[in-house]
Amino acid sequence: MSATPTATAPVTLHPRAGGAADTLALLLERRLPGHSLEAPFYMSEEIFRADLAHIFRRHWIFVAVAPQVPEPGDFITVDVGGDSVLIVRDDDMALRAFHNVCRHRGSKLCDAHQGSLGNIVCPYHQWTYDLEGKLIHADHMGETFLREQHHLHKVHLRELEGLIFICLADAPPTDFEEVAARMRPYLAPHKLAECKVAAQVEILEQGNWKLTMENNRECYHCVGNHPELTVSLYEHGFGAQPGPQNAEGIARFEQIVADSCARWEAMGLPSVRMEELDTRVTGFRTQRLPLDRAGESQTLDTQVACKKLLGDFTEKSLGGLSFWTQPNSWHHFMSDHVVSFSVIPLSAGRTLVRTTWCVHKDAVEGVDYTVENLTAVWNATNDQDRRLVELSQAGVASPAYRPGPYSPFTEGLVEAFCTWYVDRMRAGLSAA
Amino acid sequence: MSATPTATAPVTLHPRAGGAADTLALLLERRLPGHSLEAPFYMSEEIFRADLAHIFRRHWIFVAVAPQVPEPGDFITVDVGGDSVLIVRDDDMALRAFHNVCRHRGSKLCDAHQGSLGNIVCPYHQWTYDLEGKLIHADHMGETFLREQHHLHKVHLRELEGLIFICLADAPPTDFEEVAARMRPYLAPHKLAECKVAAQVEILEQGNWKLTMENNRECYHCVGNHPELTVSLYEHGFGAQPGPQNAEGIARFEQIVADSCARWEAMGLPSVRMEELDTRVTGFRTQRLPLDRAGESQTLDTQVACKKLLGDFTEKSLGGLSFWTQPNSWHHFMSDHVVSFSVIPLSAGRTLVRTTWCVHKDAVEGVDYTVENLTAVWNATNDQDRRLVELSQAGVASPAYRPGPYSPFTEGLVEAFCTWYVDRMRAGLSAA
Amino acid sequence: MSATPTATAPVTLHPRAGGAADTLALLLERRLPGHSLEAPFYMSEEIFRADLAHIFRRHWIFVAVAPQVPEPGDFITVDVGGDSVLIVRDDDMALRAFHNVCRHRGSKLCDAHQGSLGNIVCPYHQWTYDLEGKLIHADHMGETFLREQHHLHKVHLRELEGLIFICLADAPPTDFEEVAARMRPYLAPHKLAECKVAAQVEILEQGNWKLTMENNRECYHCVGNHPELTVSLYEHGFGAQPGPQNAEGIARFEQIVADSCARWEAMGLPSVRMEELDTRVTGFRTQRLPLDRAGESQTLDTQVACKKLLGDFTEKSLGGLSFWTQPNSWHHFMSDHVVSFSVIPLSAGRTLVRTTWCVHKDAVEGVDYTVENLTAVWNATNDQDRRLVELSQAGVASPAYRPGPYSPFTEGLVEAFCTWYVDRMRAGLSAA
Ligand code: FES
Ligand code: FES
Ligand code: FES
Ligand SMILES: [Fe+3]
Ligand SMILES: [Fe+3]
Ligand SMILES: [Fe+3]
Repeated sequence: MSATPTATAPVTLHPRAGGAADTLALLLERRLPGHSLEAPFYMSEEIFRADLAHIFRRHWIFVAVAPQVPEPGDFITVDVGGDSVLIVRDDDMALRAFHNVCRHRGSKLCDAHQGSLGNIVCPYHQWTYDLEGKLIHADHMGETFLREQHHLHKVHLRELEGLIFICLADAPPTDFEEVAARMRPYLAPHKLAECKVAAQVEILEQGNWKLTMENNRECYHCVGNHPELTVSLYEHGFGAQPGPQNAEGIARFEQIVADSCARWEAMGLPSVRMEELDTRVTGFRTQRLPLDRAGESQTLDTQVACKKLLGDFTEKSLGGLSFWTQPNSWHHFMSDHVVSFSVIPLSAGRTLVRTTWCVHKDAVEGVDYTVENLTAVWNATNDQDRRLVELSQAGVASPAYRPGPYSPFTEGLVEAFCTWYVDRMRAGLSAA
Repeated sequence: MSATPTATAPVTLHPRAGGAADTLALLLERRLPGHSLEAPFYMSEEIFRADLAHIFRRHWIFVAVAPQVPEPGDFITVDVGGDSVLIVRDDDMALRAFHNVCRHRGSKLCDAHQGSLGNIVCPYHQWTYDLEGKLIHADHMGETFLREQHHLHKVHLRELEGLIFICLADAPPTDFEEVAARMRPYLAPHKLAECKVAAQVEILEQGNWKLTMENNRECYHCVGNHPELTVSLYEHGFGAQPGPQNAEGIARFEQIVADSCARWEAMGLPSVRMEELDTRVTGFRTQRLPLDRAGESQTLDTQVACKKLLGDFTEKSLGGLSFWTQPNSWHHFMSDHVVSFSVIPLSAGRTLVRTTWCVHKDAVEGVDYTVENLTAVWNATNDQDRRLVELSQAGVASPAYRPGPYSPFTEGLVEAFCTWYVDRMRAGLSAA
Repeated sequence: MSATPTATAPVTLHPRAGGAADTLALLLERRLPGHSLEAPFYMSEEIFRADLAHIFRRHWIFVAVAPQVPEPGDFITVDVGGDSVLIVRDDDMALRAFHNVCRHRGSKLCDAHQGSLGNIVCPYHQWTYDLEGKLIHADHMGETFLREQHHLHKVHLRELEGLIFICLADAPPTDFEEVAARMRPYLAPHKLAECKVAAQVEILEQGNWKLTMENNRECYHCVGNHPELTVSLYEHGFGAQPGPQNAEGIARFEQIVADSCARWEAMGLPSVRMEELDTRVTGFRTQRLPLDRAGESQTLDTQVACKKLLGDFTEKSLGGLSFWTQPNSWHHFMSDHVVSFSVIPLSAGRTLVRTTWCVHKDAVEGVDYTVENLTAVWNATNDQDRRLVELSQAGVASPAYRPGPYSPFTEGLVEAFCTWYVDRMRAGLSAA
């Protein structure tokens, strides 16, 4: 066999049973830039637990949109790794997050995924907390019991123009505020916080969460797999190896991007790319890109799915403002709807993808939009991506799998994801 | 965050991946009295295996009632941890227990949960054992083969007034005889051994067996969760924080208990409490307590479920004689029926609860009793408790869970269970 | 308890929790000849991984019959341990095997179990390989990308008269050619490569693969479990303890064997036993044995299941030529059909058994044979054996299980299997 990409860091094809497992630190150390990760990153339950500890419990995680909890007392519960988190809107309309665990004997407080409540009453022995997490009632605990020592444990929460991020760390990354400040002008005009949830779908993927993220970060696979999505996506929108055969097409696409961008900026809609996926702790990327054909929305006919436009928009052709965040989300803001994706790791080989479609809160189903039309493209695309993620998981499970090379033209954001991941894991290990 | 109950034994909220697991010995050492156990006791498969080794394979375990095997040749199989045990009534009416494993190549001998047999014939190559476990036939094994070296492995068994306990240890705890001697006068009048099984129900709980036991050892949760059970239970029967608002009610209840107890003792029915849950190896507790309203039985209308009373009883209002044993059972003996609970651990997060209702063997279904009426209260109660156990398991799985304080008034028996458990585990570790 | 067979290598009945696990090397070292293996060999996921590493990735494994891929471009995928292997017939009719893993980002290439293809096109980003495994197309990879470094990883493959064996080792056992040379005269007359697959059935057994193999290697269990199979099998065909009561029967059977063998050899059909199950790396055994009653085939009426005989046969009574291979197959070649068994380990406690029935490729279903009649005996027998394997797995899971003695008369081939297994595992550990 000729020299392989991993030649500098050889892996025996058939590791002997009982041999010492390569440590996570060593695997991070020898990661070969420009190549997919070694198999243990996708397979090992131990590395999965490290992912939870160093990535999902130390960074800002996108978990929901504000329209899921519109009224005082509305709550949702979200699971992130082993943590169940209760997100409630309190009586002053503030969003709050708590660990969904009673301070008495640890019962889960709210079992439902969503609902509405006055106080938070534990189902086991009825300890009662208010919407700020304060223990306000507990029977039979005696005269010396101190209620103030048994309030709910809080979780950090930030709302960014209708997107809800939480952080399970004691000391969350501090650069979130800067990211938020820079993103706000892009997101604000779409007024997501004033939307309603038109549809939400959860799918389970039999694959590691990083394969789900890597799949999201390139469109090399789109032409062969996404007939519905590629109706509205320009062929060259996500990179290509330049050559005589496509030089004209690329130039034409770049002109369209430049023209559209100038038009939208003139309308007061920030559109230029910001790309800081692997250069900061709270990695992100954004860009408003034109859509093909009718160019209005990511729909089967590329026209708006909802007649009532978002916010104060009167113009339908605003392209798609995409917002990608590390480690677990992406979003497309259009003139008529927002579609938002949250990736939740369940185990080394199982991942939840929650997709939420929002429209103007005054839009009327059946009149202004239909759920079927609104969700058609991404339901189809999600299912196609699920299959690709599962084929990847099945493939990397083989002892014959070796990291392979990324395309320098179409897989740059995959590389950025892996670089960010490896850097943050190294940082986590150093801090531990 | 202010000082927490675990301040003297801090646990980092987010243990770092790859960090050394706290040893079982350390966790036992730092257990904070008066508080629920730390999460690994409910979650860790390693501690679960230690539970099997030190608790379930070294102590007397309640597994069945004698009416399940009334005739010679009747058998049942019970699983305790990884052990399958065959319990048979031999031709002399003695109860015997064997490991349900062939001495040839180890096939499971009896796959059915119950049945009747003449000899014990292995399904694989038909090695044949008699009801005393002796190998009496084996083909093709040659002239030098010694059958007497291949008899079935025995398991210790004791019958206590119709309750069948087994012990998997080579040397079982010796205080069982003393416990039996003291309990016999309480149990004997109900003549369980002369009953028949009217119903048996198994439910699977997605929780650790200790959460099932802890749930059983308090009624703090009853008022909020058990509408059917609390019909016959006095409100103050299982503890309350005393105060001006309930002083009169508590006093009235204590008078009822004293009067009832005196009446039953005068009838020759021992009723006074014996409580040795955490002061001996074979921990137990018993008490005959009055029932509320009609006061006859744990039924929806608190009247007897079976017209034909147990043993020689003519009086219906005998309250409920409860018998709790460590680590895995509780029983309620009433004038008309006995209901018996056996808790079987399946994995760190899965537990089987087997409930058996017995009535007089001459009682006729449809005439003297109906299964529906007999089982209504505890089927409902078991299902409510299952949900509470499962919410607890979900809650302690959170990295945010911390041991919380027990009520000094209503959770004393939970504390006794945990104390017994911790003591026995320490003893097991020391002996190992 | 009297001295047990394992007295020289005692195992505590209840290993203490947290105690050091016996190492695989120690378990291999103390294996007691003539007895079943200790429980960890059937239960431990760690030993299972060692089985994959030392047995299934280092030896020749039977995986398919040539009639499964009759035409150029036909493929099947087979899973062996964690490896998915793609077997294709190329345009020159040669059989080739590749790891079913894309060299780009590791996607599984072919998800189907069988099919037909022109080139091998990865579903993810459409990298394209020809039927010799060469990467012939990859988009967007840039000018410096070297396709010749990204051909598919090959797997060794040998066809032995229509039986397809693969070896995942870099350096496969070299004695396969000798085994093939000696077996070819036995197998060739049946012309399996010119057959078609009439039926294929997969069953899942909840047991360790070695229990499946041990079950196959004796007929001690046949009389009590296989009413369909024993119609065509002579009672003494697989060993018995000799004695006055069966001396005449055994002598008669041996005469039949000698007469049949002489007749078949005279017809040019090699029939004498070759037995090298535990004396070489590529262990095997073969023998052509007479069948009882009509004596033609392993069917319910012992007559041929297919009117069109195999190859150039005109004689129906050719008995059954059996071919057993270590570690994972057995085959019965008769005058009218071949039935072939491939055992695939899935986990310590789960095993796949794939059974394939082949008839002459010109035989017409419904005219020359029916699938129901062809498969009746082995479908019934497989299901009976599955139950026995599952009872064995359940039994050895008990802490009370101890290795028991094999019959010196009926379990010699089980002993040969275990001896081969232990020897090969020791060799694997030494080489590692
Ligand atoms: S566990 Fe919540 S009140 Fe007891
Ligand atoms: S395993 Fe029981 S007779 Fe063989
Ligand atoms: S993984 Fe096969 S082409 Fe990308
Ligand atoms: Fe995609
Ligand atoms: Fe309860
Ligand atoms: Fe069999």
